[in-house]
Amino acid sequence: MSATQKALGGEGLRGQSAGSTALCTVGKTGTGLTYRGYDISDLATNAEFEEVAYLLLKGSLPTKAELAAYKTKLISYRGLPMALKVVLEQIPADAHPMDVMRTGCSMLGNLEQEHDFVEEYDKADRLLALLPAIICYWYRYSHHGVRIETYCEQDSIGGYFLEMVTGKTPSELHRQAMNCSLILYAEHEFNASTFSARVCASTLTDLYSCITAAIGTLRGPLHGGANEAAMDMIECWQTPDEAEAGILAMLAKKEKVMGFGHAIYRESDPRNVLIKAWSEKLAKQANDAVLYDISVRVEAVMKREKSLFANADFFHATAYHFMGIPTRLFTPIFVMSRLTGWAAHVFEQRAHNRIIRPSADYIGPEHQDWLPIEQRR
Amino acid sequence: MSATQKALGGEGLRGQSAGSTALCTVGKTGTGLTYRGYDISDLATNAEFEEVAYLLLKGSLPTKAELAAYKTKLISYRGLPMALKVVLEQIPADAHPMDVMRTGCSMLGNLEQEHDFVEEYDKADRLLALLPAIICYWYRYSHHGVRIETYCEQDSIGGYFLEMVTGKTPSELHRQAMNCSLILYAEHEFNASTFSARVCASTLTDLYSCITAAIGTLRGPLHGGANEAAMDMIECWQTPDEAEAGILAMLAKKEKVMGFGHAIYRESDPRNVLIKAWSEKLAKQANDAVLYDISVRVEAVMKREKSLFANADFFHATAYHFMGIPTRLFTPIFVMSRLTGWAAHVFEQRAHNRIIRPSADYIGPEHQDWLPIEQRR
Repeated sequence: MSATQKALGGEGLRGQSAGSTALCTVGKTGTGLTYRGYDISDLATNAEFEEVAYLLLKGSLPTKAELAAYKTKLISYRGLPMALKVVLEQIPADAHPMDVMRTGCSMLGNLEQEHDFVEEYDKADRLLALLPAIICYWYRYSHHGVRIETYCEQDSIGGYFLEMVTGKTPSELHRQAMNCSLILYAEHEFNASTFSARVCASTLTDLYSCITAAIGTLRGPLHGGANEAAMDMIECWQTPDEAEAGILAMLAKKEKVMGFGHAIYRESDPRNVLIKAWSEKLAKQANDAVLYDISVRVEAVMKREKSLFANADFFHATAYHFMGIPTRLFTPIFVMSRLTGWAAHVFEQRAHNRIIRPSADYIGPEHQDWLPIEQRR
Repeated sequence: MSATQKALGGEGLRGQSAGSTALCTVGKTGTGLTYRGYDISDLATNAEFEEVAYLLLKGSLPTKAELAAYKTKLISYRGLPMALKVVLEQIPADAHPMDVMRTGCSMLGNLEQEHDFVEEYDKADRLLALLPAIICYWYRYSHHGVRIETYCEQDSIGGYFLEMVTGKTPSELHRQAMNCSLILYAEHEFNASTFSARVCASTLTDLYSCITAAIGTLRGPLHGGANEAAMDMIECWQTPDEAEAGILAMLAKKEKVMGFGHAIYRESDPRNVLIKAWSEKLAKQANDAVLYDISVRVEAVMKREKSLFANADFFHATAYHFMGIPTRLFTPIFVMSRLTGWAAHVFEQRAHNRIIRPSADYIGPEHQDWLPIEQRR
């Protein structure tokens, strides 16, 4: 585009309302993040992830009997169709794991179509149960040559994922930490991936299309992936002092330090204190004397030098690392969790739909006369 | 959601600018639709679709040598990777063809990653060359048990698609009609599918994610699919009089007649007159004395009764039908064409990016106290 073109209003839709939601507030009340009115710290401290999924998808917290039935249903939905296994085996080991998630979700849409919106809850539950199997089946096959059995009795999604990805029964501490992580990432109002799911839903397309769009949007480095980038950075240093020098050098070069600051929160990210506590516990259990301390130092330096706070992603890096999860699989965990928010937003969009079709400011050429090809230079 | 919740501002973003573009005007100048300043009727009458693709993707009309080189390149890009063939063979015959397009595009992203945005033109060209092969390979395999050879010397995308889908060399008239159709559907500003591609692109994700999101969005019945619905309707009637009676009955029951009216155009859709002329020519060549005449009558009745005009989709129905294309493959043709607009918008978003992250009006419950599961009823 030419240098005379200027950016006009509307870029990024920042601060503009694009619709209404009953699902979430970000930066408005209490510690700053609520799911259907419940404070994130209450949920992360007391709930199971399946309970939060139920809250987001079905509108209210389940009773004990409802939660038990829901978990039983999700366990029964873990079988990977043969055709989907064949597809996952065609994806090379050097593929981007988010491309695998996107393709697995899209393929499932061919095999188990959503023929009517009355099926929406059930299709969302099936995806919720199956996403860990999709990424782990591909990962273990392409990296270790193993065709894993995806049916497994682990009764939580977090525990199930940990068992599928590591091949071992996870410890209770790891299961609890993953449970908290999945709750923290479940929902966050009109972020870019959720908004793309709603734009998609507004043409009344199927759920798989909406979730596929959201996965592809989350894939971008400006959205998902910050915890992976934070891990890559943290692993470069051997001591807190080395980390401090490294951060100061990055800031001097005006490089972006991943895992800090937020588009909406101004003073802190309410999810940070919750996942940081888990990172500390996991570090102790792992007898780690380096990575957690480096993370704490980086947080302090960023606060002191730039007044920037650690967001949800920063301590997730070490927390996942201590659980034995390969760094490149961090963002797919985000998908397993955020699926609940995405699907709930799709249901909401469908219930009060108007096709999302904004206008644009035209900055291109005025009328151009047709020029026959022979006369062009 | 409860009955007390009201729809607030921002629904559908209608009339709100969500960014700027140099690609297209809709309903603003001349006959109402321009691509980079060129009038749609000039393009549809004089250009080849590959010339329009070049204009949209690269910014200006090609010279004769540039167009020849571009077409040669596109022909050389028609080979379907073996892994993608295996995936397409796993998709059942009763799948939704748009799900096949979405999955094929997503799978290609695993096999031929876009590692850097400098590759964006080349990746778009590859998709442009390959989309007809993706849908036709699946269609012919799942419906006729044939593994087609997707390399073919047809020098235009329209001719190539017609040969792949029918298995026969298309007539010159059919090639020309398809060329016009691909030009008419190539670009249309911030429609829902294009906007979803831009929201996706705004996280700086890869091109395949953006196109996959757009395909899934176009799939919805409020966006793509109107020409399929129009064909299903037209085929129900045997004579123009029967069609008139049928339309009047539909209107009396307040049923929606697909292929009429438009979200942006107020008086006419500039694409209608262009595709209608092709439908008439194709009807004559096919010695059809029914379907075209029925379409003309439906158009007249809708004008007389509801002051509604036929949009681009309405006469596309019969035009495609006369070319021997199965009705369920109509919307995938839209994808083959609109890919050019989608990709051009992704390039534009990337060049002047700000993440698209709107706000929402909260209409959910106020603070809710945590209630232990044993106390819930």
